[in-house]
Amino acid sequence: MRTIRLTLSYDGTEFHGWQVQPGYVTLQQCLTDAIDRVLHEQVVVHASGRTDAGVHALGQVAHIRIEARLPIENLQKALNTVLPRSIRVVAVQEAAAGFHARRSAIGKLYRYRMYRQPVCPPFLRNYVFHYPYRLDEASMMAAARDFEGEHDFTSFAATPERGRVDIDDPAARLAATLGERGAVRRVCRSELVRLGDELVYEVYGDGFLHHMVRNMMGFLIEIGHGKRSAGEVPQVLAARSRAAAGRTAPACGLYLVCVDYPGEGVEEGK
Amino acid sequence: MRTIRLTLSYDGTEFHGWQVQPGYVTLQQCLTDAIDRVLHEQVVVHASGRTDAGVHALGQVAHIRIEARLPIENLQKALNTVLPRSIRVVAVQEAAAGFHARRSAIGKLYRYRMYRQPVCPPFLRNYVFHYPYRLDEASMMAAARDFEGEHDFTSFAATPERGRVDIDDPAARLAATLGERGAVRRVCRSELVRLGDELVYEVYGDGFLHHMVRNMMGFLIEIGHGKRSAGEVPQVLAARSRAAAGRTAPACGLYLVCVDYPGEGVEEGK
Repeated sequence: MRTIRLTLSYDGTEFHGWQVQPGYVTLQQCLTDAIDRVLHEQVVVHASGRTDAGVHALGQVAHIRIEARLPIENLQKALNTVLPRSIRVVAVQEAAAGFHARRSAIGKLYRYRMYRQPVCPPFLRNYVFHYPYRLDEASMMAAARDFEGEHDFTSFAATPERGRVDIDDPAARLAATLGERGAVRRVCRSELVRLGDELVYEVYGDGFLHHMVRNMMGFLIEIGHGKRSAGEVPQVLAARSRAAAGRTAPACGLYLVCVDYPGEGVEEGK
Repeated sequence: MRTIRLTLSYDGTEFHGWQVQPGYVTLQQCLTDAIDRVLHEQVVVHASGRTDAGVHALGQVAHIRIEARLPIENLQKALNTVLPRSIRVVAVQEAAAGFHARRSAIGKLYRYRMYRQPVCPPFLRNYVFHYPYRLDEASMMAAARDFEGEHDFTSFAATPERGRVDIDDPAARLAATLGERGAVRRVCRSELVRLGDELVYEVYGDGFLHHMVRNMMGFLIEIGHGKRSAGEVPQVLAARSRAAAGRTAPACGLYLVCVDYPGEGVEEGK
């Protein structure tokens, strides 16, 4: 049995997210089908994390366990031949037997792109969040830094649906789905910068809750509007309640940039 | 009656080209419908030239003649609100009564993008021609220069279909559709350069025949392959026969960059 690590780039626009859902075109399904076509093996494709519908990836990592002996370069070429052009295998590596794309991951970098000019170029329409309205960008930049450190991110996590867990209180419902690690995550870098016509947010951390980056971005936008003040991040984190934060920014601006694993030199200034 | 000049940017991927064709989604139809919705006027939208299915525009120019008195900025905003996000009105100007987007044009710049790396990023799949094979790029660059000057471009023009004109000889059929100007065009600049992972071809001229840029690019690719030699452009032009040149490069790599009109400072180094 070989463990293969796949590095994937995809345009999330036309996919109903990562995870297999009957009746929908998902990334996991496309990859499972492509591997079956190339290797005639039915495998489970494990990603470092699920991305939502519309979310893009520059360097998602997944692993598969296969029997086939074909050379690694041939596997990349063959997969890229049968996959839709909206998904590309950008690297294939032989991994240690114990490698697990999600469990072995120690860090992830996400990027969120906002386009700030009045008219959004048609070529960017699915790849940025077009937001041409007035924003106090300096306040947003200052507030972004307050996410750095180890915090309980309950206020920025999607609340699991009532049907999933039979608990009334939303925070308790979230806690019940998270397991022993809870909602505590370490954010090493949280930085908002202006790059030409775009406001670009980058956040690197040891893990992210469902919708966490989009909710953080949504909150920064509320600060930019003056609906919330720049110093409010710590108290919203302390509230540990989704209701304390703001809206969820749209999926199309979000990119999973890369995933780090032990012994590979964790990102510093990536 | 006001004459309005529209500068348009569009992603040609999902359109069956510029011209209205019953049963197809075309750029002209979308614009006609949008103007009708905004102004309640049925107008004809005249472009500087028709772009084919899959061809993009950064600065296509069109004109309309309207009765409505609304301010020009409001017209741009209103059109962008009702148009699909794959078409944007990037500028609106009041034009002289005699202005005609096609007849008044004195120059056009086209760009063709080829992506040269083995794996094409999913985000570029509709915006470049992915061509990772070995090419003698230096020979192509040298040959590109030979298109400069005033030439008869019959060899690089699409042959009109047999049904359109009842003439057997393809070149005579083309001549019959071109009118008195014939197939002679002046190309002021024809330049192929390497920009990072892309080979980018730019050609500026006083007019272009149907498929001309894609056919010129297709011929440059044959030179890159060594199927044709770098010095062959003059003799292929002299042959005045479509059969003398090569294949047509795919539409997705082509962009109409801008259109020039008298008194605006014709492009030099654009």
